Amino acid sequence: MDARHDTAQVPPQFIAAMRERFGGRFSTAAAVRAHHGKDESSLPPAPPDAVLFAQSTAEVAEAVRICRAHRIPIIPFGTGTSLEGHLLAVRGGLSIDLSNMNAVLAVRSEDLDATVQPGVTRKQLNAALHGTGLFFPIDPGADASLGGMAATRASGTNAVRYGTMRDNVLAMTVVTADGAIVKTGSRAKKSAAGYDLTRLFIGSEGTLGIITELTVRLYPVPEAISSAVCAFPSVVEAVGTVIQTIQLGVPVARIELLDALAIKAINRHSKTTLREAPTLFFEFHGSPAGVEEQARTVQAIAGEHGGMDFEWATRPEDRSRLWQARHDVYYACLGLKPGARALTTDVCVPISRLADCITATVADVAASGLIAPLLGHVGDGNFHLVLLVDPDDGAEVARVHELSARLVDRALEMEGTSTGEHGIGLGKQKYMVREHGDAALAVMRAMKRALDPDDLMNPGKILPPG
Amino acid sequence: MDARHDTAQVPPQFIAAMRERFGGRFSTAAAVRAHHGKDESSLPPAPPDAVLFAQSTAEVAEAVRICRAHRIPIIPFGTGTSLEGHLLAVRGGLSIDLSNMNAVLAVRSEDLDATVQPGVTRKQLNAALHGTGLFFPIDPGADASLGGMAATRASGTNAVRYGTMRDNVLAMTVVTADGAIVKTGSRAKKSAAGYDLTRLFIGSEGTLGIITELTVRLYPVPEAISSAVCAFPSVVEAVGTVIQTIQLGVPVARIELLDALAIKAINRHSKTTLREAPTLFFEFHGSPAGVEEQARTVQAIAGEHGGMDFEWATRPEDRSRLWQARHDVYYACLGLKPGARALTTDVCVPISRLADCITATVADVAASGLIAPLLGHVGDGNFHLVLLVDPDDGAEVARVHELSARLVDRALEMEGTSTGEHGIGLGKQKYMVREHGDAALAVMRAMKRALDPDDLMNPGKILPPG
Repeated sequence: MDARHDTAQVPPQFIAAMRERFGGRFSTAAAVRAHHGKDESSLPPAPPDAVLFAQSTAEVAEAVRICRAHRIPIIPFGTGTSLEGHLLAVRGGLSIDLSNMNAVLAVRSEDLDATVQPGVTRKQLNAALHGTGLFFPIDPGADASLGGMAATRASGTNAVRYGTMRDNVLAMTVVTADGAIVKTGSRAKKSAAGYDLTRLFIGSEGTLGIITELTVRLYPVPEAISSAVCAFPSVVEAVGTVIQTIQLGVPVARIELLDALAIKAINRHSKTTLREAPTLFFEFHGSPAGVEEQARTVQAIAGEHGGMDFEWATRPEDRSRLWQARHDVYYACLGLKPGARALTTDVCVPISRLADCITATVADVAASGLIAPLLGHVGDGNFHLVLLVDPDDGAEVARVHELSARLVDRALEMEGTSTGEHGIGLGKQKYMVREHGDAALAVMRAMKRALDPDDLMNPGKILPPG
Repeated sequence: MDARHDTAQVPPQFIAAMRERFGGRFSTAAAVRAHHGKDESSLPPAPPDAVLFAQSTAEVAEAVRICRAHRIPIIPFGTGTSLEGHLLAVRGGLSIDLSNMNAVLAVRSEDLDATVQPGVTRKQLNAALHGTGLFFPIDPGADASLGGMAATRASGTNAVRYGTMRDNVLAMTVVTADGAIVKTGSRAKKSAAGYDLTRLFIGSEGTLGIITELTVRLYPVPEAISSAVCAFPSVVEAVGTVIQTIQLGVPVARIELLDALAIKAINRHSKTTLREAPTLFFEFHGSPAGVEEQARTVQAIAGEHGGMDFEWATRPEDRSRLWQARHDVYYACLGLKPGARALTTDVCVPISRLADCITATVADVAASGLIAPLLGHVGDGNFHLVLLVDPDDGAEVARVHELSARLVDRALEMEGTSTGEHGIGLGKQKYMVREHGDAALAVMRAMKRALDPDDLMNPGKILPPG
């Protein structure tokens, strides 16, 4: 993959046409390009040739038509927090920055839905919902934009109860490669009216179209919420607790695992004093009686698995501190090795295989000598290693990639996936054939050719070359 | 739409090739063709030219390759219970009957999933799950096959709590138009690995491929279940109860509306003695305490809306009788007008518009003089009219179609959909442009062309001509 690209090949007519149409909101300044050419992955930066700060769906459609006329690649940009190089301009082109399209267009309390522009972030939406009695549950680590979250089929800590972006988008507006403005879905909660275009674009990482509006599902803020933290003698005991909780059908809202090293990182970063042992963070949503019942059940299960220091956080400020620490864990982990970049793995396996998968992975990490805290949304069978790597140490970079590849192999052998929530981008293309097989990949390629025959929509992403 | 088709045009070489390969499991007998050329809609029968009783994915792939070589249309057949003409061979061709592919291949209790062949029906799966402590929730009125349910994106009474087929299929095997065997998804609970092929094929009604295996999600049988019936002075009061229940976030498992005429039909058909008034059927799932709490909340809401005779069915046999009566309501309604066929509407609207939509529809039915009981999965905003029509009375047929068209218009104006769960088939194609717009329909046509360039996979369905 060539991350460098010769800007000189962009035709001056394109620059002129964009400048004429969009004025100062179109930029070729080096600093602006650089900002739009890196994400939070350890992949090398690849700046676009130019950046447009778009303000409306109509503008995005116009820009796409100008790009198409000049054969310029188009890369949508939200908050720049992707972990697989989704936004890197590996073939140059125009980055369309959607962060100024950040209006919450409608909140319909009675229908439990909201319509937003794609630059609205998850925290911004929840702030706008303050006082309505509703909330939006999907919470990746970063305060990502909802457009970007839909494009990567993101999830987070609440998915075990509320599902992922796949389940929580009712309708979208998407600009396709021909500059058409496509409306998908409706505000009906379900529909059997033809092909599921909403799900087609969710997870397509900008390769089939640019999401310019979304209608998402909201949920009533639970009458009662309680959180708890519990340390375990081993990762296996913690995972055993998770499996039994899920199999009993306890409707737990969050159930997160952090290993001892991840807890150590959190303690340093967030000034907490958690016991540095494998730990589960829980959250329960429901009526006061329901929450108490769930919590009692889970506490009993944890007790059977050697759970220690089962500690409740019932005050909202304690809960917030706890979950903020959890959300900041990625940044906390980076602090374990100053100057390091992180390669973050993202496998997801059937829950019956989770303990085996984690045990084998922990042994692999130990043997490798790498620094790699482990954490994850274990209720879904999804966990991450944050593999810290000195980008200038070629041997270490190679060891990190080898370990990551072995982990993906392990997950695929267990009927899992290479990525539960981060997406394919550049980083995981090499696993696509292995995961899906040639026939399924041929279907994906046919869809891409059908909707983007000139390969201008975020080219070089998802589908491996060839 | 021409429902007649000249069988003579099928090349004898095709018949010979199929007979040689499949022997007695390939049939051109008139009775077999007739059985595979009608569904439960009021659309005129359109028999295929031949029928194959397939036994494996490999056989389906072989049959597709033979059909492709001779340009013969291919129509998958499950249980024949579709309501929109999905299986009618409007361009002739081969019906591939999957009902003998009815093995439950694996039940994995620890992962809450099962892998089945497409001819397994929902009742058969639940019978196979007996004793495991798990169940499969999706329950359309008919005892449909799981392959057919996935192909039409079916749902039923439990969708308000458990989602639709969209949400409950993890992975599939699909034979595509080129005879390839495509594996979609994995057993991981979530994945961000490329285009969502599982959701691409769910709801595609056989027009993009033939589903030959499915892995579906299962749920723990709730510790406690209770059902209730409550009559209301008016449909509006009943719907008011539903809306408030949903908005409060009560995790009700089922909440079904039947109008007075539907109750009358049930009383006759199922020998029940329900008060002939607008009625809600409820079901609550959870822990004993949780179920009691939900039920108390809903009973209080119903009371505020004039609910009468709130009656509990706590014994399993009473619950079964109640829900069996609910599931048989379609057949019960047919009994209201002997000799009639039914046109069943299927709109779904945002719940804030449900009362308005139903009120306007009830007035429209009253003005029309038609016999049309109303029932529905109102927790999702989805309801049906069973419009009874004498197929030989041209004027009545016209009145039924006009009323149905007005209802769809009303639902679309309210940001809803023409079909919540029955699919498009032949019957609802005329609304596709209105519902999705030209740009979205162009995307659907591009997908169809990409995956089925010769238009052999259930041709004439979903996409309107042109």
